[in-house]
Amino acid sequence: MDKVGPKVLILGAGRVCRPAAEFLTSYQNIDQVHVVVASLYQKDAEETVDGIKNATAAQLDVSDTESLSNLVSQVDVVVSLLPASFHAAIARVCIELKKHLVTASYVDDSMSKLEQVAQGAGVTILCEMGLDPGIDHMLSMKMIDEAHARNGKIKAFTSFCGGLPSPAAANNPLAYKFSWSPAGAIRAGRNPAVYKFLGEIINVDGSKLYESAKRLRLPELPAFALEHLPNRNSLMYGDLYGISKEASTVYRSTLRYEGFSEIMAILAKIGFFDAENHPLLQETNHPTYRIFLNELLNVNNISTSDTKINGEESGGHDDELISRLMMLGHCKEKELAVKILKTIKFLGLHEETQIPEDCSSAFSVICQRMEQRMAYGHNEQDMVLLHHEVEVEYPDGRPAEKHQATLLEFGKTENGRSTTAMALTVGVPAAIGALLLLQNKVQRKGVIRPLVPEIYIPALEILEAAGIKLIERVET
Amino acid sequence: MDKVGPKVLILGAGRVCRPAAEFLTSYQNIDQVHVVVASLYQKDAEETVDGIKNATAAQLDVSDTESLSNLVSQVDVVVSLLPASFHAAIARVCIELKKHLVTASYVDDSMSKLEQVAQGAGVTILCEMGLDPGIDHMLSMKMIDEAHARNGKIKAFTSFCGGLPSPAAANNPLAYKFSWSPAGAIRAGRNPAVYKFLGEIINVDGSKLYESAKRLRLPELPAFALEHLPNRNSLMYGDLYGISKEASTVYRSTLRYEGFSEIMAILAKIGFFDAENHPLLQETNHPTYRIFLNELLNVNNISTSDTKINGEESGGHDDELISRLMMLGHCKEKELAVKILKTIKFLGLHEETQIPEDCSSAFSVICQRMEQRMAYGHNEQDMVLLHHEVEVEYPDGRPAEKHQATLLEFGKTENGRSTTAMALTVGVPAAIGALLLLQNKVQRKGVIRPLVPEIYIPALEILEAAGIKLIERVET
Repeated sequence: MDKVGPKVLILGAGRVCRPAAEFLTSYQNIDQVHVVVASLYQKDAEETVDGIKNATAAQLDVSDTESLSNLVSQVDVVVSLLPASFHAAIARVCIELKKHLVTASYVDDSMSKLEQVAQGAGVTILCEMGLDPGIDHMLSMKMIDEAHARNGKIKAFTSFCGGLPSPAAANNPLAYKFSWSPAGAIRAGRNPAVYKFLGEIINVDGSKLYESAKRLRLPELPAFALEHLPNRNSLMYGDLYGISKEASTVYRSTLRYEGFSEIMAILAKIGFFDAENHPLLQETNHPTYRIFLNELLNVNNISTSDTKINGEESGGHDDELISRLMMLGHCKEKELAVKILKTIKFLGLHEETQIPEDCSSAFSVICQRMEQRMAYGHNEQDMVLLHHEVEVEYPDGRPAEKHQATLLEFGKTENGRSTTAMALTVGVPAAIGALLLLQNKVQRKGVIRPLVPEIYIPALEILEAAGIKLIERVET
Repeated sequence: MDKVGPKVLILGAGRVCRPAAEFLTSYQNIDQVHVVVASLYQKDAEETVDGIKNATAAQLDVSDTESLSNLVSQVDVVVSLLPASFHAAIARVCIELKKHLVTASYVDDSMSKLEQVAQGAGVTILCEMGLDPGIDHMLSMKMIDEAHARNGKIKAFTSFCGGLPSPAAANNPLAYKFSWSPAGAIRAGRNPAVYKFLGEIINVDGSKLYESAKRLRLPELPAFALEHLPNRNSLMYGDLYGISKEASTVYRSTLRYEGFSEIMAILAKIGFFDAENHPLLQETNHPTYRIFLNELLNVNNISTSDTKINGEESGGHDDELISRLMMLGHCKEKELAVKILKTIKFLGLHEETQIPEDCSSAFSVICQRMEQRMAYGHNEQDMVLLHHEVEVEYPDGRPAEKHQATLLEFGKTENGRSTTAMALTVGVPAAIGALLLLQNKVQRKGVIRPLVPEIYIPALEILEAAGIKLIERVET
């Protein structure tokens, strides 16, 4: 009965998919969009589209190029929400069939290489169309372009972004939760970083990243006890945003709640992030967590006191661990050692139960514990906080300005179905990308990012209309 | 058609009333309760009961003793949610008609005086049955009684409680919002306080209260950037809880977000909390906010610079205010003066608009501005956070314990109707008080508080069942 409207294929039926499919199928200003959600398992796709009118499920193994081509050929635009490593192959199919593609992932080398062929085919591969990367680019470029249009120069660009538990859900010593496997997030906390601060290039070694965290209070949101860590290569963004020459500060960072990095740094010093096989974890009969912890802290080699360490008396093992943390130089002050002890106990790294057979490194032990004990509980919300600051100077002597843009979203539960803030703020921009391509509002071809007004102006408007509130402020 | 069940009269149709009426009418474990909500204006009562089955509205001027008696005589239990000053008169009517009464207010002198006559009449006047006072008493006494039952001694009792905006709603320099007139809350911030800390009695002068605020991070909720201020007479609670002799620390405090008190202290120094009539505000033609601010800061008497102060050039008046705040000794560091300037601008205390005719003191000026600019916006949530810590020692050498209890609630919107966390956590305990009285579970007569197991044990159980989550923890 429906008029045949445009069709969008969404690849991947993870959390991000549903807000994207809901947005596209309920968008009012064009003909009814039909969405096909394809997943490796039909059941996952069906669950994702359950209750969404005008969305259907399909089974698809994207490595089966024929099936992929078959589905792609039936739609107008493709959105890939699969892991980034799949994107280049999907892009090649899209280019061949002259269909536009949207992803929420960073442009990597394999994607960059498709620039010429995509251009030649008149196809747009719109990447980095999520939150970070995504909304961060849009807000940045809007502020930067507007400042340039007023003949201003960007003196400083600073960006903070984090996916965090809501304050109420940050109910553990690390004030952090994982919505999937912790391994990737922990490894990201060990990436080297480089940024420019007041004209100076600052390099941070991966092993020192956690120690470089700095306290942050946002003056407009002072209730959040935050800290920030430099996020990989900020200089690249100076180039992408065209401000490398004029800006003396270019800094992109990751947000955590205050105290997270201090604890993570010490867990690293203890050796919990060492990913190589550990001799104690190679035999079939694995030790207990407590024995393994004692090994990492050298507890059995030299005793710091006469206290029995086998936990026979309450407080004995605790006191020994505190002394040990201080003796090994991991903690300088007792207060910090007590905090680490609390974290160890919270994670159960002191327990007298056996480490599972599939843990072969200290890193796998702590990942397994964090996955168990730092997962979101029922009804607990996540939060996304993005804050940009741009300092603008005017060569003609007009007073300098500080422009700010802030996005704060919380996970929601409606009709018993919960949507994380992260899924919403990644899924909706990706869907908006598809919408703009369906409407032929993006003229550029090739591999592109949402850095240009033809994308970010309508995209930010539609985001706001979709209820994702962006607060912009100017101070002189 | 319904079997005639028990009846409860609720006096006052403010925000707290609805959660109380909803709780009572939907409670499953006794015969259907019928609630009558009485308010000075029939319309308010009708709005409050709108959509609640088994609740009806009545018009009542409580100062009309005959009408009050008439309504009271028709019910089994009365709950007064009116301002505390009404309670003694209402209690007298209840005693005469031999009906039990519940309030969420502090027992004041006029109420204490009714102890004998209430006892004599066999009537229970259950007061302090809200959040603070209310749930705080219940959680405290449960921890204290349990410790005593194990032959423990309370070494320290510390309580933090605050009604605050949720972190997302704390979007202004003070990180605070008012849900009604600010005057009372600001005055409360100037009350003298006394408490015991490590054996020493500490007196805090009302004028120094804001300066006595201390930073607080709750280890289990580290994302909240909090501070605490001593809350009036803590020693009284040592007596009420029966721990004055054994406890070397007895401290009750009010929670705010970090930074609130520092700013309030300086607004006080500027003179904004002075309640006496101000000469500039006595004439009919009131000055602008800016002229009044300049007067308070003595800006027109001595200039600190050559900068023009009439705001002709951007930054001029700002710089003057910063210099002035430092010169007058209100702010020692420039960073703080800048923060105060931001607060002044946020409140519009620098604006060139006329101060309304009904403001006659500096205090009325800032109250009017705070009421306008620090009100909750649409969809903004409030939050209630209550945290108790009790340190227990054992004379027989068992290791000391730290017991903690925490309540964290947020305002909610359901079916377009919002309930504040404060209304919920005051209204539900008051309703539970009525329920326990209906069920004859409270044997004590006279003027009482929820300090005894016959009240706090069932009350806390019912609170949890009603979805108000209380987290209890023990550490050694």
